[in-house]
Amino acid sequence: DAIPRKAPPIERTLPCSLEDLYKGTTKKMKISRDVFDSSGRPTTVEEILAIEIRPGWKKGTKITFPEKGNEQRGIIPSDLVFIIDEKPHSIFKRDGNDLVITQRISLVEALTGYTMQLTTLDGRDLTVSINSVISPTYEEVVKGEGMPIPKEPTKKGNLRIKFNIKFPSRLTSEQKTGIKRLLTSS
Amino acid sequence: DAIPRKAPPIERTLPCSLEDLYKGTTKKMKISRDVFDSSGRPTTVEEILAIEIRPGWKKGTKITFPEKGNEQRGIIPSDLVFIIDEKPHSIFKRDGNDLVITQRISLVEALTGYTMQLTTLDGRDLTVSINSVISPTYEEVVKGEGMPIPKEPTKKGNLRIKFNIKFPSRLTSEQKTGIKRLLTSS
Repeated sequence: DAIPRKAPPIERTLPCSLEDLYKGTTKKMKISRDVFDSSGRPTTVEEILAIEIRPGWKKGTKITFPEKGNEQRGIIPSDLVFIIDEKPHSIFKRDGNDLVITQRISLVEALTGYTMQLTTLDGRDLTVSINSVISPTYEEVVKGEGMPIPKEPTKKGNLRIKFNIKFPSRLTSEQKTGIKRLLTSS
Repeated sequence: DAIPRKAPPIERTLPCSLEDLYKGTTKKMKISRDVFDSSGRPTTVEEILAIEIRPGWKKGTKITFPEKGNEQRGIIPSDLVFIIDEKPHSIFKRDGNDLVITQRISLVEALTGYTMQLTTLDGRDLTVSINSVISPTYEEVVKGEGMPIPKEPTKKGNLRIKFNIKFPSRLTSEQKTGIKRLLTSS
């Protein structure tokens, strides 16, 4: 059999934080593999592979290191494939190129105005002031504060802020009367 | 070939209103089929099939009339199968044995109390009074006002009322001040 077979690829998951995927980073992975030394004897070597994570990469992106699997006689070593996975973030959720936050606010904040302070994934302070009434379906879109877009390095997605409005659990009859008086157009 | 073949079943959709599926009804379907008369000559007959819809039947329920397809020599006529389909209702949505309504209310109604008048699928007037504060995720469950359960004729599912709270689109600064004063606990 003259045609050399190639061993099937070895896939490994590479968990990345949303910060890593926002800013980009280089991850160094130590691998250990069986090779043949110069005299043809089997031996084990350790190698450090540098994986360059580009800003905006998505879950499922594959990085292939060709023929980095174990060497075996008569077989081409397998490719080593790293697959990007995205670790859950405590504040931001990713939706394609957009970032999404759900912010819990009180009914008073929803009705009278709300200013939000947040830290971006690259560590900047961001202040978002909302003066319009925030209804349960309201969404505040902050242009360009989403994830970087790998193919268009000058662009970013949007940050979308959703709101979870906490209503008071009960109101006194005086409060109810006051609300009716205030909000019912005469 | 001594074993008689049977023609494959003929399936027909039977659209039913939610009222029909709630109360049950009998639907009469006129069918026309090829048969052989007593002297063996092919002829066409019309038949009325009565399909008894039981209260609580679900979409996908099949009613089979055996061998009601066309007669052909040497072949057993096909079964005629009616498959219940549920027509969309303007007010109620069905979720298994439950009925679900989404009611649009004002913020004032959500905060100060809301009484709902509705007509059930069997034509009764139903009044539901809600005195607690209705938050965006609030759900009022009215026991036993859902769909009948075919296997347990004494039982019904629940009616679940959800709310879509319409916020005022803007508020004056006087209204905002009043709301802060009323709703902020001192």
